[in-house]
Amino acid sequence: MSRPTIETFPNPEPNRRYVITHVNAEFTSVCPKTGLPDFGTVTVRYVPRQLCIELKSLKYYFLSYRNEGIFYEAVTNRILDDLVAACDPEEMTVTTEWRTRGGIYSTIEARYERADRR
Amino acid sequence: MSRPTIETFPNPEPNRRYVITHVNAEFTSVCPKTGLPDFGTVTVRYVPRQLCIELKSLKYYFLSYRNEGIFYEAVTNRILDDLVAACDPEEMTVTTEWRTRGGIYSTIEARYERADRR
Amino acid sequence: MSRPTIETFPNPEPNRRYVITHVNAEFTSVCPKTGLPDFGTVTVRYVPRQLCIELKSLKYYFLSYRNEGIFYEAVTNRILDDLVAACDPEEMTVTTEWRTRGGIYSTIEARYERADRR
Amino acid sequence: MSRPTIETFPNPEPNRRYVITHVNAEFTSVCPKTGLPDFGTVTVRYVPRQLCIELKSLKYYFLSYRNEGIFYEAVTNRILDDLVAACDPEEMTVTTEWRTRGGIYSTIEARYERADRR
Amino acid sequence: MSRPTIETFPNPEPNRRYVITHVNAEFTSVCPKTGLPDFGTVTVRYVPRQLCIELKSLKYYFLSYRNEGIFYEAVTNRILDDLVAACDPEEMTVTTEWRTRGGIYSTIEARYERADRR
Amino acid sequence: MSRPTIETFPNPEPNRRYVITHVNAEFTSVCPKTGLPDFGTVTVRYVPRQLCIELKSLKYYFLSYRNEGIFYEAVTNRILDDLVAACDPEEMTVTTEWRTRGGIYSTIEARYERADRR
Amino acid sequence: MSRPTIETFPNPEPNRRYVITHVNAEFTSVCPKTGLPDFGTVTVRYVPRQLCIELKSLKYYFLSYRNEGIFYEAVTNRILDDLVAACDPEEMTVTTEWRTRGGIYSTIEARYERADRR
Amino acid sequence: MSRPTIETFPNPEPNRRYVITHVNAEFTSVCPKTGLPDFGTVTVRYVPRQLCIELKSLKYYFLSYRNEGIFYEAVTNRILDDLVAACDPEEMTVTTEWRTRGGIYSTIEARYERADRR
Amino acid sequence: MSRPTIETFPNPEPNRRYVITHVNAEFTSVCPKTGLPDFGTVTVRYVPRQLCIELKSLKYYFLSYRNEGIFYEAVTNRILDDLVAACDPEEMTVTTEWRTRGGIYSTIEARYERADRR
Amino acid sequence: MSRPTIETFPNPEPNRRYVITHVNAEFTSVCPKTGLPDFGTVTVRYVPRQLCIELKSLKYYFLSYRNEGIFYEAVTNRILDDLVAACDPEEMTVTTEWRTRGGIYSTIEARYERADRR
Repeated sequence: MSRPTIETFPNPEPNRRYVITHVNAEFTSVCPKTGLPDFGTVTVRYVPRQLCIELKSLKYYFLSYRNEGIFYEAVTNRILDDLVAACDPEEMTVTTEWRTRGGIYSTIEARYERADRR
Repeated sequence: MSRPTIETFPNPEPNRRYVITHVNAEFTSVCPKTGLPDFGTVTVRYVPRQLCIELKSLKYYFLSYRNEGIFYEAVTNRILDDLVAACDPEEMTVTTEWRTRGGIYSTIEARYERADRR
Repeated sequence: MSRPTIETFPNPEPNRRYVITHVNAEFTSVCPKTGLPDFGTVTVRYVPRQLCIELKSLKYYFLSYRNEGIFYEAVTNRILDDLVAACDPEEMTVTTEWRTRGGIYSTIEARYERADRR
Repeated sequence: MSRPTIETFPNPEPNRRYVITHVNAEFTSVCPKTGLPDFGTVTVRYVPRQLCIELKSLKYYFLSYRNEGIFYEAVTNRILDDLVAACDPEEMTVTTEWRTRGGIYSTIEARYERADRR
Repeated sequence: MSRPTIETFPNPEPNRRYVITHVNAEFTSVCPKTGLPDFGTVTVRYVPRQLCIELKSLKYYFLSYRNEGIFYEAVTNRILDDLVAACDPEEMTVTTEWRTRGGIYSTIEARYERADRR
Repeated sequence: MSRPTIETFPNPEPNRRYVITHVNAEFTSVCPKTGLPDFGTVTVRYVPRQLCIELKSLKYYFLSYRNEGIFYEAVTNRILDDLVAACDPEEMTVTTEWRTRGGIYSTIEARYERADRR
Repeated sequence: MSRPTIETFPNPEPNRRYVITHVNAEFTSVCPKTGLPDFGTVTVRYVPRQLCIELKSLKYYFLSYRNEGIFYEAVTNRILDDLVAACDPEEMTVTTEWRTRGGIYSTIEARYERADRR
Repeated sequence: MSRPTIETFPNPEPNRRYVITHVNAEFTSVCPKTGLPDFGTVTVRYVPRQLCIELKSLKYYFLSYRNEGIFYEAVTNRILDDLVAACDPEEMTVTTEWRTRGGIYSTIEARYERADRR
Repeated sequence: MSRPTIETFPNPEPNRRYVITHVNAEFTSVCPKTGLPDFGTVTVRYVPRQLCIELKSLKYYFLSYRNEGIFYEAVTNRILDDLVAACDPEEMTVTTEWRTRGGIYSTIEARYERADRR
Repeated sequence: MSRPTIETFPNPEPNRRYVITHVNAEFTSVCPKTGLPDFGTVTVRYVPRQLCIELKSLKYYFLSYRNEGIFYEAVTNRILDDLVAACDPEEMTVTTEWRTRGGIYSTIEARYERADRR
């Protein structure tokens, strides 16, 4: 599925290593097994290089999942991949925490670090 | 006792090491000594390899213990064994926390790591 | 004083090192100085080897102290000794926390580790 | 945009290494994308050398952002740069925590250390 | 001033290193400067050797300070010295926390360890 | 400005290293820029050598700042210097936490250690 | 817009006046002004007459608002009207509490009582 | 000063008496004495007649005070007057709670009821 | 003792009965018995007629007690009398809550209502 | 037993009916059965007539019970009688809340009203 572009703007301090955190407590997508909606909180934490993620486009990017059937694990990794592709950060962690479904609640956490730093 | 199959789906990011947590706060089984129900919370935390555990089948798997007489220690290890067999993860921890019985409440925690990592 | 037998059952996973915790918040014994009742919480935490402690017999074991005059320090160590003798664990910690007596409240914590591990 | 001067006064104990923290829970600026106000808490923590930041001028410095359009990342780094330029500290950390916008809340943290200490 | 004897009883497990804590939240003595009463909480934490402190005599020992003028620092160290003399422990910590006097509240903490262990 | 003498008394246990904490939650001085009162909490934590600080004189010492214009940073270091001069401790930390002024609240922390220990 | 039928079942105790409460903390609809999603908690509290609301159909009824543009006030009254029409209760209250939008959060509460009771 | 129009929409249930609450925790205006900003929380609670207040225009209405010098009492009554004029409600209460200024924090509460109801 | 004038400004809505509350959590005066400072919180709650109390002059009015010896009961009634004289309200309540002195903390509450309303 | 005089001073506003509350959280007396100390909180709440109770003498009055054997019920009523005799109030309530003794904690509340008001 095509998604809204994640816009960026030039990092105002590319020579300084610093940390940016965005938390969306209103994320919703659809369970691919049941067709019922899932609700969760998405936390993105990253160290920028040349680009920062623009907040309004990030909101629309998150909204694009509203009616899409996708597993927790897939959406977590997909967000990480898309945001890394958009802003090429030093490092980034995406955590998703999901509300109870069938008596079970879940958390997924995935992390990216630039290859040359590992 | 035969149990429902734990279904899996392909890990969407098998090359990335990341962590998945599922918590079932509505687990119930039966005490093998007294025939009375036990109630507990089961927490499964794992790092996937090629497969992820599908959530709906996990729900039915947990439900299959509802009328089975089994000790706390046995059910904790049995869940760990079954889930490891189903998805072959890098590592997995299963924790069970049980409501008060006869004035006593209990917690059991068991952990698996792949042999080649140890 | 003779006590009810602490029953055990075979550890369902003797090859796995895991942790079991039982908490009794309704323990009562008698002060050997004053003859007045003491009330406390007993926490038992252990790693099993071949045997696990059966919960119902543990309840009756705890109940057997109800009318016995015994110091805090003695009951704490006695429980640790009896439970170690019953199930021969890798390690075990017993903690007792006591309600106020004469304006003073007390906590005792004792620990066992198998000799060949030290 | 020109800003009010950040006044300083001589550090009363330049030979002692100690820590000063100022927290402004009433910071507000304007989003450069939407023209709408942003609200946040700014925390400045530093070790002084020869100069300390005067609190009243710091208040007016913060007020100067009230009607300025500026990204979270830029204002955080700009405050750090301006305060470091004003008082030349041993080290300084600036943290900004922002109220929810479009369902998303954000935190930015940037840090300076004197070159000869690194 | 002479004090009630701190009674002891044989440690029921002298071969095991374990921890005993007694907290008296109703301690009171008298300020030697003003003659006014002080109120505080005394916490005694120790590892016994051959002897344990008997709780009822400890209560009377604490009560003996009720009408004695003594500084916070002195009473804290005096309790530590007296209890160490009475039971010769492996180690002991005494902490006293005092209610507000003249707008100021205070805490004193003193510790003993056996010379041959240091 | 001259201040009340900080009285001391002989440390009752000069051979033992122990910790004394005094907290004054009713400290007030005057802002040298605006002439308006400041309110804060002062915490003094030290390890005594030969002398302990007498509490009543400490109260009067703190009161002497009531109508004096002095910066947060200066009063914090001044208290530390005066108390160190009065009792020559092993080490001492003074922390001041100030109520909101102009929407900003502040904390200052300064520490002394004897030269021969460093 | 047509909606899923709200199913009902016969009240098992129509001769007794009792209270039923259902809370949906995962309600979402769309703002008719901006096209952006709204998120809220819907609480339904009623006294049944001949019919009770079936829970699974209520879930699908709530889901039907997911992509519909509707004001807070309209959706609150619409839910009340639809549920009253479906089960003809003695009385019913619907409360909706909405997450922050543009720095503002809102609550709407509407109530129905049978005409012949007023 | 002229303000943005407070838009309204037809009350979807004009025959039902129900309650609408909007809370803006990000209100800011300017003190007419000092020229410094004030920060507060504004709560509007009303029973509509023919018209409801549209939320986005309410946001812009609140924003219009951002750079205006106005007393707490005046802004509270002005908001009440403007909102009553815009939607002609059955009744309305406006409460403003203000952050500390000069060590003082304030609350103002004003209420309107239709004349023919009194 | 003469005090700063309590300034007023015209009530912006003299025809509406509404409530104004000011809380000063930094009040301090001096005990007439001991010469030591007292600290308290003063709450003023009133319904205005033609005049409102201006906040900055209220701050200076409160500050004027800083070095004055006065009983709790007298200062509470004096504030009530002075504020009533300054703004002639419909009704006013003054509550003072005082920090611990000699182990005792106190609260005083006094109330005024216009004679023609009683 | 003779007690320190409870001093009074002229009520600064004898024509206004207002309420004074004093709370002593450090009250201690002695149990007449066991000789052991009791600890409690004493709350005095009264409406003055011509006289107010002076706080320092009240402190010494409370201190006079420190070593006196007296039942909870007796001390509560005795305080009420003594304070009424000292200041002849409109009405007075004395409440005592006692720390746990033998696992039991107690509260006593006694009240006086002037005969001509009933």
